[in-house]
Amino acid sequence: MKLISHPDANHYAYPLDLCVEMSGDAKVLKIYYLPFGTGNDISEAAQAYDSKKVHGAEIEYHPDLVKNHRTTTKPYHVSQPEGPSFEVDGNLIQWEKWRFRVGFNYREGLTLHDVRYDGRSLFYRLSLSEMFVPYADPRMPYARKAAFDLGSDGAGVCANDLKLGCDCLGHIKYFDGWHTTTDGTPIKLPNAVCCHEADDGILWKHTNFRTGHAVVTRSRILILQTIITVSNYEYIFAFQFGQDASLNYEVRATGIVSTVPISVGDKVPFGTVVAPGVMAPYHQHLFSLRIDPAVEGYKNSLLVEESHPMPIQDPKVHNPFGIGYTTESQIVQSESGLDLDHSVGRVFKIVNEDVINPVTGSPVGYKLAPSYSQLVLAHPSSYHAKRSEFGEHAVWVTRHSDEELFASGQHTMQSMGGQGIASWIKERREKGQETSVRKEDIVIWHTFGSTHNPRAEDWPVMPVEKMTVGLKPINFFTANPAIDVAVSTQEKNQSVLVDGVSKMNGHCS
Amino acid sequence: MKLISHPDANHYAYPLDLCVEMSGDAKVLKIYYLPFGTGNDISEAAQAYDSKKVHGAEIEYHPDLVKNHRTTTKPYHVSQPEGPSFEVDGNLIQWEKWRFRVGFNYREGLTLHDVRYDGRSLFYRLSLSEMFVPYADPRMPYARKAAFDLGSDGAGVCANDLKLGCDCLGHIKYFDGWHTTTDGTPIKLPNAVCCHEADDGILWKHTNFRTGHAVVTRSRILILQTIITVSNYEYIFAFQFGQDASLNYEVRATGIVSTVPISVGDKVPFGTVVAPGVMAPYHQHLFSLRIDPAVEGYKNSLLVEESHPMPIQDPKVHNPFGIGYTTESQIVQSESGLDLDHSVGRVFKIVNEDVINPVTGSPVGYKLAPSYSQLVLAHPSSYHAKRSEFGEHAVWVTRHSDEELFASGQHTMQSMGGQGIASWIKERREKGQETSVRKEDIVIWHTFGSTHNPRAEDWPVMPVEKMTVGLKPINFFTANPAIDVAVSTQEKNQSVLVDGVSKMNGHCS
Repeated sequence: MKLISHPDANHYAYPLDLCVEMSGDAKVLKIYYLPFGTGNDISEAAQAYDSKKVHGAEIEYHPDLVKNHRTTTKPYHVSQPEGPSFEVDGNLIQWEKWRFRVGFNYREGLTLHDVRYDGRSLFYRLSLSEMFVPYADPRMPYARKAAFDLGSDGAGVCANDLKLGCDCLGHIKYFDGWHTTTDGTPIKLPNAVCCHEADDGILWKHTNFRTGHAVVTRSRILILQTIITVSNYEYIFAFQFGQDASLNYEVRATGIVSTVPISVGDKVPFGTVVAPGVMAPYHQHLFSLRIDPAVEGYKNSLLVEESHPMPIQDPKVHNPFGIGYTTESQIVQSESGLDLDHSVGRVFKIVNEDVINPVTGSPVGYKLAPSYSQLVLAHPSSYHAKRSEFGEHAVWVTRHSDEELFASGQHTMQSMGGQGIASWIKERREKGQETSVRKEDIVIWHTFGSTHNPRAEDWPVMPVEKMTVGLKPINFFTANPAIDVAVSTQEKNQSVLVDGVSKMNGHCS
Repeated sequence: MKLISHPDANHYAYPLDLCVEMSGDAKVLKIYYLPFGTGNDISEAAQAYDSKKVHGAEIEYHPDLVKNHRTTTKPYHVSQPEGPSFEVDGNLIQWEKWRFRVGFNYREGLTLHDVRYDGRSLFYRLSLSEMFVPYADPRMPYARKAAFDLGSDGAGVCANDLKLGCDCLGHIKYFDGWHTTTDGTPIKLPNAVCCHEADDGILWKHTNFRTGHAVVTRSRILILQTIITVSNYEYIFAFQFGQDASLNYEVRATGIVSTVPISVGDKVPFGTVVAPGVMAPYHQHLFSLRIDPAVEGYKNSLLVEESHPMPIQDPKVHNPFGIGYTTESQIVQSESGLDLDHSVGRVFKIVNEDVINPVTGSPVGYKLAPSYSQLVLAHPSSYHAKRSEFGEHAVWVTRHSDEELFASGQHTMQSMGGQGIASWIKERREKGQETSVRKEDIVIWHTFGSTHNPRAEDWPVMPVEKMTVGLKPINFFTANPAIDVAVSTQEKNQSVLVDGVSKMNGHCS
């Protein structure tokens, strides 16, 4: 076995073939050898592990250990000669008609509070509620392998100390997080959240073809980003505010896939061999975004809308050419879990039925632009599934309860299940408690993520896998709220024309 | 009726209540009045149209006519002191291991050819093949309303002359397009395509929690963008190249929604009132992206993979804890249309079965990261549906044919249907011609888009609606192809720390 002595060598490239069972007071109870190749058995005797054949490929990521870094990427600077467009006062941020407060705690990490646009209330609280990473390898001890990265590890305590010029680009404002030691002493988690602006391409454009006059505006976004390291993986969480009153929540998954040993030449149907002797098991990343809305007040409803063809040859319906379609809407009446269906154009709108848009005549609202994702694959009888109830449906609506912040309950991996969102609903129903969610103080939960069957390209550190959830106004305003964004001009933007002359004379075909 | 005399007044805010039927030689045949309110009838006599009540809201977008532009957006400059990282020689572009040629024609606009990464062949040709915008208003004359923006208008001839500092930001290289007059004289379409780099946040990151050392790289992308104006609407089409060998195709829809008159106070179930007297009918935008792959050569296959739970209590399967899942794969054998299903994690991979990845033992490939979209809503018996066969399925695979570039055939709105992708397949089957697509020169077509039921916020010019399709290597490389991207440092990136002092003293609560 070829070992690298560098302290930042990628030790996930050298998975041990043994496992140690410990007692609660840190005594070794048993040492056993992991299942190998395609076998299922663990054993207290070493198996036929040919150490010469495994770990043949030296796969490193640390710059000291990567040979031949590319030198083609020229510097790229962002400058804001008049400073950033945002203003900060303590935890209050104001930017481009947005106004909200930044929160932070050991478990959820970054949270947003009292989110308003142009003085109008949108959200009471936005937070990542939970995430679950169940692994697919059915063999012991791997069948236990799963992580609740918020409930068991903590997105706050795992937050990176973000560095200027590395994790954000431009004019950066940092926010510290605070935690406590076991004796109550405060500990600062420095630079746990960064705040900066970015250009996001074109926001809107129209050319009047009669006059030839083009009007174009660029889109500026405000990004609040936090990054967590949970052992091998990293997650980059970012709220992105738009000038058009849209708000995206972006997750980027990166870091190193978890690995186990495998005999060279063997394959398994629940994992990918990413290097000789190194297998990365299939797994899922399931996130629960908790949206506590306050769309023009706390009493909101969830409206499910679909687009359906109008019937043909129905004398009651005027659709002589068969091209008509209409929307069908339904207000969700009681707490429940719902699913996505792009085939009927299903849209989830958080509306305030008591506030009617004077132009459209419909209730003001914000719609969810979901991330289409496979739900939890573990069998309902498994502990993985029992502990991750939020993974049963893509969208949940519940009544607001101060005690219900975490979609898998308080204790996640330490629970026997039955602590999460489905259990809250079931319990209220069984006890005959109030379950109405129409014109009530409600909470919307969106389950999304990825079924991550690793690629060779995810090794040794995976390029970011992006997932985005959007919240967009729908008949909340009487017109495009970004129509007042100033027009884009060269005087303001100062781009540089690259001339047409080839720089490749002689060295290309 | 209040009229604005400015030449760039938004005339879509003043829909005429009449329609003129013309002959082929431009003679007026008939003038009739449009259906009004909720009625279906057209008439040659004016209806009860209260011109004083409509068009009450002056909704403009041109900067001369918008009052109170926001002044809060501070300038944002991108500088590249050493110039861009790309090199251009004629229509050949090289950037960060990518190499490809830029094409342009009157119908498809921007096309890409012979796309390679690190010298390895990926795609023979990438193009937007067609787009279709069927409207949902069943009344005459609106039931005819639909647009094939490529086949009937032309993405090339409708391409905007892009302006420095407006449509792109940074160091911009422009490409002209060429077209001909009816007598064959060449006409230049200046600056039809722009090419520039952008920062795209973090590309990959890992912190070794044992040493505390973080390694982070930023993602640079190369964008090739073209913008078309088709009467009221604009579409922004962009290919985005990543350093990790991923390639995105992004569509942004903006511009002005098409409008028709409606009586003030009335509503219809197939449209949204966006201003008093102005109704924007529901419609769809359906795009067909044509992917002509050459993954390590022209003989490719389409593999459909799904993730399924392993059975429990099956003595032949080791899954004692019920958490196992595996992938099931199938190679598509003959030309067909297929659909998306996120509930089973369905993935479409373009593979070369004859080239095996030495690490994973599986064929090299590129996967489609689709845009989940509702398919065509018009009834199959309608001309809308007959003319847009590509709208029946989300993914199509066909054998390559030089004559088959346009998913709705040559003549789109001028056809009776039966000219598109489904007809090609049917015809070859019926004639007993070759229909095998395994290890053949194949073409993959992805149908995506939006069911656009307008919001008040889409008026008078809609903020961009983004749709993205991705192409990502899957076991094409033996490791992360971006692992050699240089580490992100403040020395290189030169960000600016925003101090912690409030700038809002005294003017916020």
